[in-house]
Amino acid sequence: MRLTTIRHEGRTQAARVEGDLLVLLDGTDVGDILRSGVDRHADGPTVAAHDAQRAPLVTAPGKIVCVGVNYRDHIEEMGREVPPAPTYFAKFREALIGAHDDITLPAVETSTHIDWEAELAIVIGSAVRHASASDAMAAIAGFTVLNDVSVRDYQRRTTQFLAGKTFEGMTPVGPDLVTTDVVGDGSGLAISASVDGELKQSSNTSELVFNAIDIVADLSTIITLEPGDIIATGTPGGVGAARNPPEWLADGMVLRTEIAELGACNNTCRLP
Amino acid sequence: MRLTTIRHEGRTQAARVEGDLLVLLDGTDVGDILRSGVDRHADGPTVAAHDAQRAPLVTAPGKIVCVGVNYRDHIEEMGREVPPAPTYFAKFREALIGAHDDITLPAVETSTHIDWEAELAIVIGSAVRHASASDAMAAIAGFTVLNDVSVRDYQRRTTQFLAGKTFEGMTPVGPDLVTTDVVGDGSGLAISASVDGELKQSSNTSELVFNAIDIVADLSTIITLEPGDIIATGTPGGVGAARNPPEWLADGMVLRTEIAELGACNNTCRLP
Repeated sequence: MRLTTIRHEGRTQAARVEGDLLVLLDGTDVGDILRSGVDRHADGPTVAAHDAQRAPLVTAPGKIVCVGVNYRDHIEEMGREVPPAPTYFAKFREALIGAHDDITLPAVETSTHIDWEAELAIVIGSAVRHASASDAMAAIAGFTVLNDVSVRDYQRRTTQFLAGKTFEGMTPVGPDLVTTDVVGDGSGLAISASVDGELKQSSNTSELVFNAIDIVADLSTIITLEPGDIIATGTPGGVGAARNPPEWLADGMVLRTEIAELGACNNTCRLP
Repeated sequence: MRLTTIRHEGRTQAARVEGDLLVLLDGTDVGDILRSGVDRHADGPTVAAHDAQRAPLVTAPGKIVCVGVNYRDHIEEMGREVPPAPTYFAKFREALIGAHDDITLPAVETSTHIDWEAELAIVIGSAVRHASASDAMAAIAGFTVLNDVSVRDYQRRTTQFLAGKTFEGMTPVGPDLVTTDVVGDGSGLAISASVDGELKQSSNTSELVFNAIDIVADLSTIITLEPGDIIATGTPGGVGAARNPPEWLADGMVLRTEIAELGACNNTCRLP
């Protein structure tokens, strides 16, 4: 099953994707559907998918957890070492945008070091704490596409990444939640990012150092994961900061982030 | 003015503190009061303050931002350097407990390296982005007490602090929001932590490297701060990890965190 969140009649609404049609569901967004347990198979009014404007897949996740340094080729290009456990940092909801929304760049006097990070994102479907591997798999509703667009000089200003990772309106997420009955544990999926049609990152989610189940089980040692929580699993090699010379996103550039079976985000960078 | 959040008749409710009495207000918690703009001076039913059980001051903040390495003596004891900008990391709402609630320790096989961190916490009162110093001051509703109780081995497992900072049910916050008309910009307040009556940390909020206004102005460059958001400003010297030998919190110990004019949190550590 594929679920999505659209902007509809002045608010956001959840929908089920059926080919070129969206069947509207009784929920304000996919997070609401996951939390309320409303029937996802219900009939409802339909809208054409190509007419619908996508909102952030989950508009107000209780938590957005990101995993860093989690693909070996990216670890090498950043000059880091394979960590002994997943490297967690956070992002706040104000960072999220829809799958086709513009990315709001910071003013040029704030930063021009804007980088892409294509990522597989986990969406939690049921509350889980102290999870075994099978508990972790059962708690995952499915997966979506996220680009952890990063402001590198803010990320590197101190030891902690958060400042460069949660700029407002810079993190595309969507277009759909694709459930685990379709894509299993999220492994084996081609993942890529391109800028203005030029391929920048190309890998496979099987290259993750810590996979989705590892991450959910480990995180649940620390805190209860709740329906609608989003966990971005890290990015493969090919980011702009690691290129020689470095490459950055700028006004007017189009960032495409794609994962096989999950779909793509297409976002144009815009100065405020 | 002092505002608080109590557990009352099976739910949480906001109240105004008037000496030994709490005047119940029309809101589920202080965050709700700040967001809704309900009249904080309204009359209402009262309960005795000493009978009331305090909930987390803001039960579901949109964001909890923490600042690390922000007192010089703590920077020295941790062997770090004064950073060029505030060092931000996050905490999630499931970490929060009330001012007198038990701290739920992790199972001993998870960690025994549990440390105290007395902190001045900012509570945001109105939405602000790209704030000047005066905008920042105007956006602050007031201040409260928070202890960023930390699981040091999880904090140090990777480069990013988050894992050791957001364990469930370990972060006391409260008892009251004391507004800026009472405590100004939050500077000049004695701050301390004691364990089983023995003083462990003793400093003054004027020793902050980046003060409340600096932090709000800088953070608002990155993201919109919203009413009810909490920002913990960092801890002074005297933490357990920096002692020789190191000292850790354990089952049955009582942690007291106090800031002059703001009040105190008293929390007993309990194994699950």
